[in-house]
Amino acid sequence: MSDRNDIDALIEMMARLPGLGPRSARRAVLHMIRKRALLLQPLADQMARVAQTARECLNCGNIGTSDICAICASEKRATGLICVVEDVADLWAMERAAVFKGRYHVLGGTLSALDGVGPDDLRIPALLTRIETEAVTEVILALNATVDGMTTAHYIADQLEGRVTLTSLAQGVPIGGELDYLDDGTITAALNARKPV
Amino acid sequence: MSDRNDIDALIEMMARLPGLGPRSARRAVLHMIRKRALLLQPLADQMARVAQTARECLNCGNIGTSDICAICASEKRATGLICVVEDVADLWAMERAAVFKGRYHVLGGTLSALDGVGPDDLRIPALLTRIETEAVTEVILALNATVDGMTTAHYIADQLEGRVTLTSLAQGVPIGGELDYLDDGTITAALNARKPV
Repeated sequence: MSDRNDIDALIEMMARLPGLGPRSARRAVLHMIRKRALLLQPLADQMARVAQTARECLNCGNIGTSDICAICASEKRATGLICVVEDVADLWAMERAAVFKGRYHVLGGTLSALDGVGPDDLRIPALLTRIETEAVTEVILALNATVDGMTTAHYIADQLEGRVTLTSLAQGVPIGGELDYLDDGTITAALNARKPV
Repeated sequence: MSDRNDIDALIEMMARLPGLGPRSARRAVLHMIRKRALLLQPLADQMARVAQTARECLNCGNIGTSDICAICASEKRATGLICVVEDVADLWAMERAAVFKGRYHVLGGTLSALDGVGPDDLRIPALLTRIETEAVTEVILALNATVDGMTTAHYIADQLEGRVTLTSLAQGVPIGGELDYLDDGTITAALNARKPV
């Protein structure tokens, strides 16, 4: 239908977003068109604004709206303590828990021999520089518990050995988790790391 | 984090779309920011364009970019044959099947005593007018097989009785459907409407 070209193009673009497919993109676009003054136009404006202002923090790799992100710029965050994460989404998840008061370093992925990702493709050199310039004493490795994540954690641990205190997130039963639904690996890790009550 | 206000606002707006929640909205926004030149800015532009141009067809209620939609304006579509659907999404689904060559009429919902939706809240008066002005001979009721959909179909059938040929979509086993997974109502309908081979 020739006069739906604009709308079809929008549906196609929305369908490319992660978590949306053609069907949900159609539903979302119809919903937005029905509320175009309340939803579609403001969303378009906000996207244009973010497209202009969003940038990676030059220091840690977090995504924000300034060259140095709010966390790196904050005087309230402890210096000398860096939490290493794979991805900005992981950093945001840590921030939602609102328990970590140090700073972050976003690697931007994991080492992967298969995909040809080496240390220089990640922000590992920048991490090594920060260890010196920010007088870091502890590095927390908060990488995902996948094969690639653990390979990367080992590589970073090798590089930093003897220079800083290295820690990693505890593994065990998630809060609210039921044993019956946990995988064997998690149960094994939780049992091995059992604590006196 | 003060400098994420713009990004947080975008995530909140995306999370209001049907089919997206806070988590998938965050993922989508991060994905868009990473590809801002390829995805975020073009999407913003396209949304702004659609917000300006999208409108309801004055004749049938379809959503397009002109006052009379491409289907109503097309000379290739049979006149005198109208398919009545609840929603624009239903019309688009019918068009994807690309088998119906008549025109449509979008009701914009169903009659519902509970929600206080009466005939005048839907595009039923407009349908009655079209029956006369377009010299309609057949009306296909393609309403959803829900209680409200069937109530609405009955109401329209009452209004049109004797004035046009009334038909409705066949009910039965969906193509590719397995009997084992079908509900009793569908099996009953399919059995009652059985055809000689």
